Amino acid sequence: MAGLIPTSPLALPLPALPPVAGVRLAVGQAGIRYQGRNDVLLATFAEGTTVAGVFTKNLCPGAPVTWCREMLPGGQARGLVVNAGNANVFNGVAGQRAVEATAKSAAQTIGAPRETIFLASTGVIGEPMPAHKIVGVMQSLYGKPESGLADAARAIMTTDTFPKAATRKARLGGIEVQISGIAKGSGMIAPDMATMLAFLFTDAAIPAPALQAMLAKGVDHSFNCITIDSDTSTSDTVLLFATGQARNKPTDDPAALADFRRALGEVLHDLAMLVVRDGEGAQKLVKITVDGAVSNHSARRIGLAIANSPLVKTAIAGEDANWGRIVMAVGKAGEPADRDKLAIAVGGTWMAKAGGVVPGYNEAPVVAHMKGREIDIEVDIGLGTGRATVWTCDLTHGYIDINGSYRS
Amino acid sequence: MAGLIPTSPLALPLPALPPVAGVRLAVGQAGIRYQGRNDVLLATFAEGTTVAGVFTKNLCPGAPVTWCREMLPGGQARGLVVNAGNANVFNGVAGQRAVEATAKSAAQTIGAPRETIFLASTGVIGEPMPAHKIVGVMQSLYGKPESGLADAARAIMTTDTFPKAATRKARLGGIEVQISGIAKGSGMIAPDMATMLAFLFTDAAIPAPALQAMLAKGVDHSFNCITIDSDTSTSDTVLLFATGQARNKPTDDPAALADFRRALGEVLHDLAMLVVRDGEGAQKLVKITVDGAVSNHSARRIGLAIANSPLVKTAIAGEDANWGRIVMAVGKAGEPADRDKLAIAVGGTWMAKAGGVVPGYNEAPVVAHMKGREIDIEVDIGLGTGRATVWTCDLTHGYIDINGSYRS
Repeated sequence: MAGLIPTSPLALPLPALPPVAGVRLAVGQAGIRYQGRNDVLLATFAEGTTVAGVFTKNLCPGAPVTWCREMLPGGQARGLVVNAGNANVFNGVAGQRAVEATAKSAAQTIGAPRETIFLASTGVIGEPMPAHKIVGVMQSLYGKPESGLADAARAIMTTDTFPKAATRKARLGGIEVQISGIAKGSGMIAPDMATMLAFLFTDAAIPAPALQAMLAKGVDHSFNCITIDSDTSTSDTVLLFATGQARNKPTDDPAALADFRRALGEVLHDLAMLVVRDGEGAQKLVKITVDGAVSNHSARRIGLAIANSPLVKTAIAGEDANWGRIVMAVGKAGEPADRDKLAIAVGGTWMAKAGGVVPGYNEAPVVAHMKGREIDIEVDIGLGTGRATVWTCDLTHGYIDINGSYRS
Repeated sequence: MAGLIPTSPLALPLPALPPVAGVRLAVGQAGIRYQGRNDVLLATFAEGTTVAGVFTKNLCPGAPVTWCREMLPGGQARGLVVNAGNANVFNGVAGQRAVEATAKSAAQTIGAPRETIFLASTGVIGEPMPAHKIVGVMQSLYGKPESGLADAARAIMTTDTFPKAATRKARLGGIEVQISGIAKGSGMIAPDMATMLAFLFTDAAIPAPALQAMLAKGVDHSFNCITIDSDTSTSDTVLLFATGQARNKPTDDPAALADFRRALGEVLHDLAMLVVRDGEGAQKLVKITVDGAVSNHSARRIGLAIANSPLVKTAIAGEDANWGRIVMAVGKAGEPADRDKLAIAVGGTWMAKAGGVVPGYNEAPVVAHMKGREIDIEVDIGLGTGRATVWTCDLTHGYIDINGSYRS
């Protein structure tokens, strides 16, 4: 299927991705669903690597998510196995056994406790997971020459049309550290979070609890602010591994971690934007800023109501600045709003204010803006100081093409 | 636009619609947006007609909704004016003036207090409402030969591809009474309720408070159980007028009203189903029954999560019984659910049970069922006795076609 879908017009090229000290990446072909492409990633971490994770809030999570949740409190990681093609979701006891077999194989191969192995799977739901195919290539993966982050980003793709990665440097305890991440995801993307996998690697030394706090906050401001189709995956996983190889003095002091937090936030934001840019069928990247709500939480709920409205999304696909549908979406959010205080701008032009269209507003710049790839919508609720920004994409024929025949 | 959209393959023919005593219907061409077709309906009611109404929960309602809400406590109706083409939503003070001008004109024409005039508008949001066009035809409408319910049903259509009406008889106080209704709506349909207008007429004599109680309950079990695209219109209106011309003894006794309540529920259910059958781009009517939830409320929320999932809806469009996506939707509903107790059936065949696929289940009847026009999904949550049924349609290219270019 992936070969039939053209690359998103919103795709961005991979940045230069230097290796992260203490992370060894290997990719290979397990042939789980896809043939003739890499579909499995093994990452091996230096001893002492700490780990943080954030997972889907879907109440029917995949077996790998359950596994990771159980291992996370240990705070230590030595290995990560990711496969594409089968999500190992809703496979009952067999799904659990597949997870255990994969973890055991990785642990034995690496020579580390099972409790330090993390797993993620993405792909079709409800088909038995052929764990033996992953186990069968584990040893050869471990012995392979090292792969780069770019290959790793490609190995975890499903309906993605381009690989996704981001990188930043930060100062930590007087030392330069690096944070790089890869992600996959293009459909079933909604808070919280998405059929979205993201793996971040840093050479910084940071205790697991501090890492966890920073990751949770960073995800809330990035992946939890994007939506493609309002569907929440059963497999969403964001893992952050800190190898400590930069040899900074480990710290959990928030002030000392400020620049790391900034860099982590930027990597997460970049990855989230790449996921939206690869939204299934996406032709336009849509930024929705809500201001003047009664709280930040309320602003985000209103923003997501707009971002998830099929009528708003199809209007954008049709390059129609149909602010009437935005009014509808604000009203359906269930958050405090007053029709007669609402204001709406598209591409910086305020089209509606004080409960009605702005008389004689110049439509020309709005029409031009709607023809572009990046659409900017601003909504002022006029009630308070709550503010939020969310991102989505348009809803096009491509979405129907991709999702109407995924399994066939 | 309407002329370009083929009639829904799920359309049903209009039933025979006898006139309702005490209701006089007239349709005409106000030329608000559509040319060469009727776009305005004037209904005049006998003196003593009582009225009940249920309206959108959207917090940015149209001016006609605000008007009706203010008039409803009076409980008396002499006139109803409905137009198609302009929803008179988000027009600020001008919208309010348009409503007042229309109501004043109808009141003068009919010779009744303004407080007994009810209004509804459907169509584009945020364009100034040319009330003078309605006012201009009011007198000629009033003088026209009577129209039937079928013409009335056609006059209020927007993106509808077929007119919608239903009728039932009921026994009330030893007398046979009639309930007939018309509806329009095909997009922006979701609880509570839809770009959905429905007007019901009965010759029964029923006090307004009893009428209101029955209508509210009936709507909750019909229109509030359907969803097309999760969007909630700013204009949703259901009005029920009881002319009293059947000369039954007015009653608010629940036991005496039982058969009327049954008939009202059936008319509402029929109309709601017709709206789903005309869902924008719909190729399949989808019934989702959720059983075993912790409460009826929880069951409905789970049902709507499934019904609103773009991934479920596109899978159905692709005739793919992708129960993995149903698992996902159950999990994202935020209601109590246990992955390992879930069971899912399509077309009566249980495909998944106890957290996994049913080993060796026969896919053939499921594949055949998915090719049909009416899709039946059953979900057993396995936790309690809560139960609900909701209806939706599939998500197809037609939806994108219709909504990507509505205004152009």
